[in-house]
Amino acid sequence: MRAATQRDRGSAERPVDPGRFLTREADPEEPAAGRGAVDFPVAVVLPAGGSGERTGLSTPKQFCTFLTRPLISYTIQAFERVPWIERIVVVVAKESHSLMTDIVEKFNHAKVKIVHGGSTRHRSIFCGLQAFAETDESLLHKPKVVIIHDAVRPFVEEDFLHKITMAAKEQGASGAMRPLVSTVIATTSEGYLDHSLERAKYRASEMPQGFLYDIIYQAYQRCSESDFEFGTECLHLALHYCGTNAKLIEGPPTLWKVTYKRDLAAAEAVVKETLSQTACVMTEECAESLDLSHKLLKKLSAEDMLVDVIPNPKGVKGVSLTSNRNFIHISVNSSKLAQIAEMVMVLEETNHALLYPVVIVWKPDPHGLQDSHGAQVLFLMSELNLKQTQTPDKREDKQSKKI
Amino acid sequence: MRAATQRDRGSAERPVDPGRFLTREADPEEPAAGRGAVDFPVAVVLPAGGSGERTGLSTPKQFCTFLTRPLISYTIQAFERVPWIERIVVVVAKESHSLMTDIVEKFNHAKVKIVHGGSTRHRSIFCGLQAFAETDESLLHKPKVVIIHDAVRPFVEEDFLHKITMAAKEQGASGAMRPLVSTVIATTSEGYLDHSLERAKYRASEMPQGFLYDIIYQAYQRCSESDFEFGTECLHLALHYCGTNAKLIEGPPTLWKVTYKRDLAAAEAVVKETLSQTACVMTEECAESLDLSHKLLKKLSAEDMLVDVIPNPKGVKGVSLTSNRNFIHISVNSSKLAQIAEMVMVLEETNHALLYPVVIVWKPDPHGLQDSHGAQVLFLMSELNLKQTQTPDKREDKQSKKI
Repeated sequence: MRAATQRDRGSAERPVDPGRFLTREADPEEPAAGRGAVDFPVAVVLPAGGSGERTGLSTPKQFCTFLTRPLISYTIQAFERVPWIERIVVVVAKESHSLMTDIVEKFNHAKVKIVHGGSTRHRSIFCGLQAFAETDESLLHKPKVVIIHDAVRPFVEEDFLHKITMAAKEQGASGAMRPLVSTVIATTSEGYLDHSLERAKYRASEMPQGFLYDIIYQAYQRCSESDFEFGTECLHLALHYCGTNAKLIEGPPTLWKVTYKRDLAAAEAVVKETLSQTACVMTEECAESLDLSHKLLKKLSAEDMLVDVIPNPKGVKGVSLTSNRNFIHISVNSSKLAQIAEMVMVLEETNHALLYPVVIVWKPDPHGLQDSHGAQVLFLMSELNLKQTQTPDKREDKQSKKI
Repeated sequence: MRAATQRDRGSAERPVDPGRFLTREADPEEPAAGRGAVDFPVAVVLPAGGSGERTGLSTPKQFCTFLTRPLISYTIQAFERVPWIERIVVVVAKESHSLMTDIVEKFNHAKVKIVHGGSTRHRSIFCGLQAFAETDESLLHKPKVVIIHDAVRPFVEEDFLHKITMAAKEQGASGAMRPLVSTVIATTSEGYLDHSLERAKYRASEMPQGFLYDIIYQAYQRCSESDFEFGTECLHLALHYCGTNAKLIEGPPTLWKVTYKRDLAAAEAVVKETLSQTACVMTEECAESLDLSHKLLKKLSAEDMLVDVIPNPKGVKGVSLTSNRNFIHISVNSSKLAQIAEMVMVLEETNHALLYPVVIVWKPDPHGLQDSHGAQVLFLMSELNLKQTQTPDKREDKQSKKI
């Protein structure tokens, strides 16, 4: 169950739900069935120098914050939880350097290197690529494949990154495409309809895109000032300067780009929904705890939630914390208080609690439990589904505690 | 001031804010400067038969509700508040008929006629157009110009509808266009990049579109089964079957289409922001009330809010209620209680309070006012900006009342 992605579940009944994105990284020791391991170095270049004019906000959109985290941090996180991605070069304008450094520190973005960008998107991408070429002064290894993405597309999934990476390695270049949302039309110089394109023959080119590092770096070294100034498409540069025809892969709707202010509200809704659909239940190993957690698991799964059960709360120190989940700890034994306190400390240290609510169900009297099980489990469930933003004091009213 | 639109304000400092949409209809007796009056009949056809597959929701997206109102009702409202639009033909699937009837009743959509649609979008539009042709059994006048729109684009503004309508009358057809968001690419049959289109030469065709009724009706009468089944573009039909080259007009980003579940959250954010930026202050005519309302007006305007002051609360019965605003009533005279009660009744009857909070500041003791003015005004302001969803009992705690 651990290696399954959300997209695998229930896809027969309905189209890919854009309200979901992959929140669980693959276990490195347990690769998903049917896909090859990435056994070569992969890095990411994330141009984030844009001014975000279209959002109508004073802060560039990649730095806008929702649910206590800036947009770019969600995007970085999407790459950091992929174990086979080694490095993420974030390219920012000079004036954003200290802001970006703060974000990297606050959210423990250990794979990130910050680089200063140029005046256009293509110049910034080139700056990012050059960071791997300056071997004498930097510690960055040259990757086999480099993924180029947008800082403002936070919901990219590991599955899709894997496809892009493998295709890039095999074909030299690869890119995401999506069906066209609107009909594309050509206009006359006077502003009249000239003709409309046949929608089925065309696609929208989206991010991420993947390249053999040597190919895309060479393409950027060869490209003209006009490409740097007005070009929009890395795939075009690889084709034009290196003769590499990119493999195009149909991407999910979650690849969408945060462009307008309203998109920040949409992104927040996506994160909240994902949270409400994933949980990690930790229990003590005694029979009563396990029984209670089993009931909870059944209830939550029936609500289409993705739930892991960890039967030993000590596991919180290990792999379980690298996922973004609601943690539910069930304890029926008052003697384990110290253990709970330790877990709370670990959660606080990792900053996970900033975003992901932790609910601890603690019943010091195991003999009084039988009747209250059902009610409490039900209450927790509705809380997880509906009340992500509830205040701590309200939770305490109801005998559970939020950190 | 009344004829100014939000887009006129502050547009020099920043691009059109997609978080705003026009909430104030033009006064019919006071047409906006520089634009011709619409002195011919105009109607709307709103195809709403879609199943909303892409939202991943069981309810078709046009019937999804946010802030107590279904999406389609926001769209209808956008047309209903335009005084020169006579009729709105909403085309729904047979199975949605009673749902649509309920919506029309609940939200007083007086201009709407419901018609049953066909199996595709083009068939449904044709059904809508036919409703004006059946003169013997229907009361619908044949319009000079018909606007075709999507039920899932709720934020269309009067200014833009005016441009589309006038261009349609003059040129026979007109349509909204937007810059392309993504690069458009052509793929080979094996899924490789063939070429990318030069972005500057193409546009995305959006809604609304306008037509001389006779032209678009003729085009639909002539069009083939294949057009009905696979066609995507009304403008193309007008060009192909009637030789009419549509005039294309650059539209604002607010024309965006609610496609995915996340877009519902975005639409909700747009409505909330608009609410937080508009208010109508009603005062009694005594000096103290006027003074207090003047101070409030100054504060709110400094926060970039669009505020009207109505110095006589009796005005609530008239034009003021056709706008969507936060109403703030200021009263310092206890003898006017009956008047307040009357106003509350009117607001309740019109259903406005469903969506737009009404705040009544009532100070029965005018002599104790001097010191508390500032604080109370400030409190109200922060409430308007931040707390649209506050619960009634919380407001009452703070000595103001929400209906």
